[in-house]
Amino acid sequence: MVVVSHGGLADAMVAAASMICGDLERVTPVGLDPTDSPETFGERLAAAIDDTHPTLILSDLYGGTPHNVACVLAQRGRAVRCISGTNLGLLIEAVSTSEELDDQLVDRLISLAREGVVDVTSRLSLSRD
Amino acid sequence: MVVVSHGGLADAMVAAASMICGDLERVTPVGLDPTDSPETFGERLAAAIDDTHPTLILSDLYGGTPHNVACVLAQRGRAVRCISGTNLGLLIEAVSTSEELDDQLVDRLISLAREGVVDVTSRLSLSRD
Repeated sequence: MVVVSHGGLADAMVAAASMICGDLERVTPVGLDPTDSPETFGERLAAAIDDTHPTLILSDLYGGTPHNVACVLAQRGRAVRCISGTNLGLLIEAVSTSEELDDQLVDRLISLAREGVVDVTSRLSLSRD
Repeated sequence: MVVVSHGGLADAMVAAASMICGDLERVTPVGLDPTDSPETFGERLAAAIDDTHPTLILSDLYGGTPHNVACVLAQRGRAVRCISGTNLGLLIEAVSTSEELDDQLVDRLISLAREGVVDVTSRLSLSRD
């Protein structure tokens, strides 16, 4: 699994998940540095992908450069699945499962990530009523 | 606006948003250090909130300590709204708007954050068909 992002966000997201789940040996963060071109970033990303196994790439932002470069790799026929809009809950669910990387798992991860985006204050208000 | 997280995730998320939007003077990241107790983290979070203005707190993970401490502050009657499950798209939308912090804005931000969680590979496959 690979997490791609602007700057150090991927590193920090993996570190935050590690505070909760322990060491994440299966996850490689690849951040786009301000000095990177899409090409230099793409080279680092390609090097992080193990072609002998299906790879899940979690990107920080739909339409951002890290995301777009990951899409190019996926289109080149590598066994890559990409999910954009990663939040910490999505990463934790993705590293916690032992399920095969297929449509069913991807759909479940997306549902869980979306369900984690919650207007907490409104829930608190309801609980006080 | 305040972003709360495990470790350096809040800092990294604000830095990543700055790579896209420029300096974010209105946003304060507050990270839970491994040495923090909920109390010491809560003190730093309370200090980051300006009681004279409504404050939006974006938390990294529903049910995590940063999130739970933010909920305690919100329940104490401060003019605080909390959204959990923050991704980079949510933060960028939140800093880019000049709308008043009300139910309508919170609902819109949540919808946008959820819509940013996308199975990109499936979209690519569709576009190749």
